[in-house]
Amino acid sequence: MSGNTLGTLFTVTSFGESHGPALGCVVDGCPPGLALAAEDLQRDLDRRRPASSRYVTQRRESDRVRILSGVVDGRTLGTPIGLLIENEDQRPRDYSKLRTLFRPGHADYSYQQKYGRRDYRGGGRASARETCTRVAAAGIARKYLAEECGIRIRGYLAQLGPLVLELKDWDAVERNVFFCGDAERVPELEAFMQALLKSGDSIGARVNVVAEQMPPGLGEPVFDRLDADIAGAMMSINAVKGVEIGAGFASVVQRGTEHRDLLTPQGFASNNAGGILGGISTGQAITVSVALKPTSSIRLPAPTVDVQGQVAEVATAGRHDPCVGIRATPIVEAMLALVLMDHLLRHRAQNMGVESGTPVIPAAAPAGSITS
Amino acid sequence: MSGNTLGTLFTVTSFGESHGPALGCVVDGCPPGLALAAEDLQRDLDRRRPASSRYVTQRRESDRVRILSGVVDGRTLGTPIGLLIENEDQRPRDYSKLRTLFRPGHADYSYQQKYGRRDYRGGGRASARETCTRVAAAGIARKYLAEECGIRIRGYLAQLGPLVLELKDWDAVERNVFFCGDAERVPELEAFMQALLKSGDSIGARVNVVAEQMPPGLGEPVFDRLDADIAGAMMSINAVKGVEIGAGFASVVQRGTEHRDLLTPQGFASNNAGGILGGISTGQAITVSVALKPTSSIRLPAPTVDVQGQVAEVATAGRHDPCVGIRATPIVEAMLALVLMDHLLRHRAQNMGVESGTPVIPAAAPAGSITS
Amino acid sequence: MSGNTLGTLFTVTSFGESHGPALGCVVDGCPPGLALAAEDLQRDLDRRRPASSRYVTQRRESDRVRILSGVVDGRTLGTPIGLLIENEDQRPRDYSKLRTLFRPGHADYSYQQKYGRRDYRGGGRASARETCTRVAAAGIARKYLAEECGIRIRGYLAQLGPLVLELKDWDAVERNVFFCGDAERVPELEAFMQALLKSGDSIGARVNVVAEQMPPGLGEPVFDRLDADIAGAMMSINAVKGVEIGAGFASVVQRGTEHRDLLTPQGFASNNAGGILGGISTGQAITVSVALKPTSSIRLPAPTVDVQGQVAEVATAGRHDPCVGIRATPIVEAMLALVLMDHLLRHRAQNMGVESGTPVIPAAAPAGSITS
Amino acid sequence: MSGNTLGTLFTVTSFGESHGPALGCVVDGCPPGLALAAEDLQRDLDRRRPASSRYVTQRRESDRVRILSGVVDGRTLGTPIGLLIENEDQRPRDYSKLRTLFRPGHADYSYQQKYGRRDYRGGGRASARETCTRVAAAGIARKYLAEECGIRIRGYLAQLGPLVLELKDWDAVERNVFFCGDAERVPELEAFMQALLKSGDSIGARVNVVAEQMPPGLGEPVFDRLDADIAGAMMSINAVKGVEIGAGFASVVQRGTEHRDLLTPQGFASNNAGGILGGISTGQAITVSVALKPTSSIRLPAPTVDVQGQVAEVATAGRHDPCVGIRATPIVEAMLALVLMDHLLRHRAQNMGVESGTPVIPAAAPAGSITS
Repeated sequence: MSGNTLGTLFTVTSFGESHGPALGCVVDGCPPGLALAAEDLQRDLDRRRPASSRYVTQRRESDRVRILSGVVDGRTLGTPIGLLIENEDQRPRDYSKLRTLFRPGHADYSYQQKYGRRDYRGGGRASARETCTRVAAAGIARKYLAEECGIRIRGYLAQLGPLVLELKDWDAVERNVFFCGDAERVPELEAFMQALLKSGDSIGARVNVVAEQMPPGLGEPVFDRLDADIAGAMMSINAVKGVEIGAGFASVVQRGTEHRDLLTPQGFASNNAGGILGGISTGQAITVSVALKPTSSIRLPAPTVDVQGQVAEVATAGRHDPCVGIRATPIVEAMLALVLMDHLLRHRAQNMGVESGTPVIPAAAPAGSITS
Repeated sequence: MSGNTLGTLFTVTSFGESHGPALGCVVDGCPPGLALAAEDLQRDLDRRRPASSRYVTQRRESDRVRILSGVVDGRTLGTPIGLLIENEDQRPRDYSKLRTLFRPGHADYSYQQKYGRRDYRGGGRASARETCTRVAAAGIARKYLAEECGIRIRGYLAQLGPLVLELKDWDAVERNVFFCGDAERVPELEAFMQALLKSGDSIGARVNVVAEQMPPGLGEPVFDRLDADIAGAMMSINAVKGVEIGAGFASVVQRGTEHRDLLTPQGFASNNAGGILGGISTGQAITVSVALKPTSSIRLPAPTVDVQGQVAEVATAGRHDPCVGIRATPIVEAMLALVLMDHLLRHRAQNMGVESGTPVIPAAAPAGSITS
Repeated sequence: MSGNTLGTLFTVTSFGESHGPALGCVVDGCPPGLALAAEDLQRDLDRRRPASSRYVTQRRESDRVRILSGVVDGRTLGTPIGLLIENEDQRPRDYSKLRTLFRPGHADYSYQQKYGRRDYRGGGRASARETCTRVAAAGIARKYLAEECGIRIRGYLAQLGPLVLELKDWDAVERNVFFCGDAERVPELEAFMQALLKSGDSIGARVNVVAEQMPPGLGEPVFDRLDADIAGAMMSINAVKGVEIGAGFASVVQRGTEHRDLLTPQGFASNNAGGILGGISTGQAITVSVALKPTSSIRLPAPTVDVQGQVAEVATAGRHDPCVGIRATPIVEAMLALVLMDHLLRHRAQNMGVESGTPVIPAAAPAGSITS
Repeated sequence: MSGNTLGTLFTVTSFGESHGPALGCVVDGCPPGLALAAEDLQRDLDRRRPASSRYVTQRRESDRVRILSGVVDGRTLGTPIGLLIENEDQRPRDYSKLRTLFRPGHADYSYQQKYGRRDYRGGGRASARETCTRVAAAGIARKYLAEECGIRIRGYLAQLGPLVLELKDWDAVERNVFFCGDAERVPELEAFMQALLKSGDSIGARVNVVAEQMPPGLGEPVFDRLDADIAGAMMSINAVKGVEIGAGFASVVQRGTEHRDLLTPQGFASNNAGGILGGISTGQAITVSVALKPTSSIRLPAPTVDVQGQVAEVATAGRHDPCVGIRATPIVEAMLALVLMDHLLRHRAQNMGVESGTPVIPAAAPAGSITS
């Protein structure tokens, strides 16, 4: 398989450069009969859209998605769903100076070494713009997961640079441009970002995502573990440098007696596992946390080399996100949805009709936990 | 694809339960002409072998690997290489009490929910014993990567519970049973483990791994990024709960001016990227860090439920690792080798003969860094 | 993998219904640096285009293909190439009567049983219209194969119903609407088709295709043999019911002494193998022959059942090919090109730099053979 | 994917050379809970076993298969099933003369060109011996298909060189060494083969296979059509040069009114489609016919070239089948079973719970037809 397809049964094959005519994808394997319209996909596209606030890139894109196939009379046919998003606000000329320069921290150099050429116009395929197709495709998965299993996938900004953010209220998340779950901290975030914008620098972030109402049994042990596929999907997002499931790196200092989640008839007593044991979902909430690096596209100049290997200086013109983490929440949710959808289909392929022979333990949350 | 195959072109398809007759795998896609004998694979198998010290499981397995196909006259043919490791010290009876109980933190419950049955004998396929085939298969990849490209892959224990361990000397790593790169800390580790053994509890760990002498250009952008495939491969190891590439979670608090690795004709000025930009290797060392949870197989009893959903108590008899992180170094190295090998083949499939048109920047290490 | 992707390294993922807004595909894995413009793909699209003669469907489609990504400054980037063909002459109303009827010999019934619904508008995804994306995608493969290896892929109509047609002259093939290699037989074909059109019936056909200037070594033994992948690709074309490689079914009555192609320093003495031995190309011309059934979309009424399982009568309105074999030549060529391209990349992934240690035997044609 | 894995969800990954220590495979994706023992696989292995009559190779192999994993307490676990067949009667010395010679019609030359080396011992991986793992693996699929859906897969020898053989009685097929369905013709076949053995030559054959009690709905339209995957699987068998589904090449001369299978409430009126429309099973019997070439391993000498490209002469010592078609029936059945099993799992992954909304048409056989 070439590198632009995600999934085994529910697959997304994407294409498109940041400043080309359009981006799009083919979503294959969707079950038939799902009610689906472009509006169902638009909501999450709007959540990740550029220019939605002054703290993100000011590129103006309506990100309207068209469904080109696979849906007739408002229902999916079971045939592949072609999705198309036209680029509207391309400005390739903004990037003409970058044609011969390698921006530090950007993919310019590695693309050039791999392919002997690259699309210098705004990062081409290495741009975060590419993620719009992921979000569009995942809208289909999210709708199916919700309607078929009741699965709910929600994320939030857990850290913006030095500012650690608690999830106090899921409803708050959608009421600010940062996807912050603590309404009282929003002014602090605004102040931080305004100072950052002034400085011309960028900052890292952490985003958490949770899938609730999970059925047990999803995931293929050994290589295609559910957590392995989640980790791969998350790390495939631009700027992600780390992934944790459940207790994550905190488990390094835990003892077995502390980490193991006790089973009781009333539910699991804790969720250090993040909802996955042996690569298979337990029915508890799946909890994932990702680290996003500070974007390398900043206007502060830096020494670098050019394509001839000579010393040069580079500063990124164009329009960019000073913190890609701000718009990352819908993308992180999308990747989790795509992986869960794929594994739901894989699971029932092999295990349709299997009787587990044991009751399902409720995904009871420990006291005081918002994410169960 | 079913879940027991790793890779796209250089593939490992594994089978085997912990207390069944044998484990094995099929390694497909190996280039022809590689000099290969069972001894080449045995060295790493011996490094991860049980009972190699008192701090790991005392199960006695020689872990002798047989090459059943794909090699004639000491050279690979290009046809699939069948590898077989017979189990010698099975004790399924040790586990008969677990037939109806779910161990907290173990895969018992999730397997039962998925398949309606499970191999209760020592974890079956969910046992860390499964990783022996990964290490055997990776021996082929490591040999090819070393001989063809000069790539060297080395790991070490970076943290044992609360004890953070520096890499002071690569040579030290192989001279103690902990894969610790600081010889002076070994007595401390021994004391820690002895106390742990006495307590009956287990502990988490962190393992770092580095691939040096990397060629630039490996990795498929967007979904099959090199870092995405590494993250997935690492998270597919039993007990791994977190993966970082380069600066990892530290990048959350970094600024762009701090994180971006400057390019100079003499080399990169730093390696926050961990050797990968835009999903493609830069030629710098690839640096990965993984978190391993404390094993759930401990002799301290815990409340749990049985297959009828009734309250019960469980304690794990059998022989187990109190810290799976101790034997994890060869496994983490193996997974990195398998991913790099697969991407080397994928890269040259598409880009054979491509001229990059730009000089390769040396992977110069920043001053004071041992891992470049 | 879902069912709408072809190939392992050079992949085509297609979407689109016959009477939906558009058809398209994503071509992934194309090497970078190939000069490519939409016109390069248009030639073959025009060769298979509807309404190109009175003997094929009269649906009016310009079949203009747009390249949406993967090409900058006239050269491929190595990133996925999005191709789009808008439908212009949809007439879904022509098909409203078919909503509740199953046409005999058509996919109506099997789609309904599989998905519980179907796109009744002109066959939806089961329409031969779907093949336009195959031809567009294959244009990329053909260009690369020609420029990189000199491979030339050509097909012709070998039989139209009872009329067996010899290949007398490759140049003749492109000078008539039937892709017939014997100019003198064209009036006979015209007369046959006019009578057929008058009768309202349809007819089967046989198409042959040849790939010349083949390098030896393409194909993966055992399951992914070159001939296996060719057979699968050909049988995936609508209406194909049989595939032969080399001597094909004629080999049933051959003796070994007759079938085996002798090797001489001057070349192979014959080509019963059709250019493939043990699943691997020998360097001789690859020769393939396919049987195409008479289309089931004919205006002569037939008894059938409706979705309630009741007896009914059906006749196909709409515009259809009375012999799909006439337009099949570019499609059959396309499928061969796609398989060869994929195997070229697969071969060099594993065997780049391998020295065969033996001279290449010329693909000398037996006396009197036009297809070597 | 490398070339030694078949299938998407129910996968077989095989290894092994004809004169190496063992052959084997990993069967992944099998549903849990299937009752399975080695004896279940042995029956078909015995049907294809060498030395089962004087008309096949006299190599003595017991072909005992061992199940190494994936089965506990007599039931499949859902984890991969490792199968192993040890070679017992290797005679690599028989082949020492072939080390530097290319046998005409054999894979010697193409392997050498691809890999720069080859296993000259009896064909290595290109030997028909490789098919024993296919038959073993398919035993699992056949058992599941039979128990879960009632699908029955049976084949027979339809032609031996010039002798066309009718299927008069399924029971007769298993009562003679030729898998001939017409008991009265067996003496004729014996006489033919005795004369052939005396001559030292070999002969081609045709084998037909039928799957009855098929559920409708299996197959993925467009590329992964059920017929496409069957064609690929059949062509992947050594010596197969042609594949037909349903009417096959006979459809070339058919008219639409003749070919289309009418639907009636009592059943389909004919089966020219061979049970597949639009790539999806209709519920009628699937009918497949394959052409097998005469084996190239014959003792009659032939001119050839050696690895230096010099003229030489070669005659095959060793033990060989004068007609590989005789033992091919269980292999052809096996390939059909593997494809159907994979598509059953794929179908239910996407379409579990889908209501077709239309009655299933019985697979009524036309009068006088034995294969419906």
